[in-house]
Amino acid sequence: MKVVNDLLGYKNLKIVQDTSFFSFSFDSVLLPNFVSLNNSVKNILDIGTGNAPIPLILSRKTNANIYAIEIQKEVYDLAKETLEINNLDNRINLINDDVKNLNKYFKNEFFDVITCNPPYFKYEKTSKLNDVNIKSIARHEIKLDLDSLMNISFKYLKNNGILAMIHRTDRLAEILSVMRSNRIEPKRILFIYPKIGKFSNLFLVEGVKNANSGIISVDQLIAHNPDGSYTADVLKYFE
Amino acid sequence: MKVVNDLLGYKNLKIVQDTSFFSFSFDSVLLPNFVSLNNSVKNILDIGTGNAPIPLILSRKTNANIYAIEIQKEVYDLAKETLEINNLDNRINLINDDVKNLNKYFKNEFFDVITCNPPYFKYEKTSKLNDVNIKSIARHEIKLDLDSLMNISFKYLKNNGILAMIHRTDRLAEILSVMRSNRIEPKRILFIYPKIGKFSNLFLVEGVKNANSGIISVDQLIAHNPDGSYTADVLKYFE
Repeated sequence: MKVVNDLLGYKNLKIVQDTSFFSFSFDSVLLPNFVSLNNSVKNILDIGTGNAPIPLILSRKTNANIYAIEIQKEVYDLAKETLEINNLDNRINLINDDVKNLNKYFKNEFFDVITCNPPYFKYEKTSKLNDVNIKSIARHEIKLDLDSLMNISFKYLKNNGILAMIHRTDRLAEILSVMRSNRIEPKRILFIYPKIGKFSNLFLVEGVKNANSGIISVDQLIAHNPDGSYTADVLKYFE
Repeated sequence: MKVVNDLLGYKNLKIVQDTSFFSFSFDSVLLPNFVSLNNSVKNILDIGTGNAPIPLILSRKTNANIYAIEIQKEVYDLAKETLEINNLDNRINLINDDVKNLNKYFKNEFFDVITCNPPYFKYEKTSKLNDVNIKSIARHEIKLDLDSLMNISFKYLKNNGILAMIHRTDRLAEILSVMRSNRIEPKRILFIYPKIGKFSNLFLVEGVKNANSGIISVDQLIAHNPDGSYTADVLKYFE
């Protein structure tokens, strides 16, 4: 079912969703608020943009050029509608293609910042997927695994460019290792805890291409109060 | 100056310190309380034991055999005195040697658990050390770097044995990578925050030899209240 919702925390931004694919999530609001942006940032790319929540918020936070790529035609169509409904179709450059074809659109080292809310789950032949469909491609590493993502990011980021990503905490060690082996050095991490007293389930990480080893900040954010409402700290993340 | 102090949080345990070398620290109390211990644990090794705070606390928490190795004779002497003053010299097996000589004492795969509060700082020829002395060996990776520590731990741990370590958060990415490349898979992490609103400065990590990829828990602990006193959560870590 296709619905139009307010973007979580942003009453003036609308998002078009198809509830049979997936729903827009909390994760996608955190990322564009976490990533380091400054006036020297010229070009930003969002990889696997889905229905475009990340570019939407980025457009409120930066004057840089914003590009977004989505492999699935049905999902790209939702993103396109989302941009139109917000009058942002001229502001955000949307591409319907596999990120492995970026060379058709951009030169190496074109981007200052790359963001990505990637598929969270590994895809193995033993993965219990009923079938490979729109939802499973968004959730499982069928079209893009971590190593390819880092490899592509390294190629298209400027020297000292930034990759910012949100992912599941259970894959932390693997992710930091893969970033390092692709010369994208983890520099800032924010752990999300669903509630006080629970383990972290998500984390945001920012890596810098060709940077020296050494993390600058590890911080934490509790998502929900005991009654289930968002904490004051989280609401600060939504403008 | 040599002094005898109560071990932080343990009124019935005394520790012998030489304030000109280094003082016993908060970090060493956290580690033996963090590490997973169960009844099947038979043999534990503490690498770079210093004046033996970790074995001291372990002796209150397990019936396993406890071994501890310290390379520096002057520091080993403090550890020896510490054990005697606590009547634990028959309970804890103290060795004065380089951990690279462990083969003189133990067979491969002898230990169920290895603990380590290692030197926190890299040692490079450009490191600003006035001279290599007792204090600098305890603080800098002069005698033992991370990769050697993991390599040795892998060798002397049983299959599925546990390595537990405390280290500086700024080295998180490097440490998790080095653990993984030595087939000690990070499974549990506890981030220490000095106060609410500050970034994490220390973390504890437990890795399991030959385990599958995937972190089980990432948790957090705030060390101090705004007034500088230890938080209730930290005091729970001290029995």
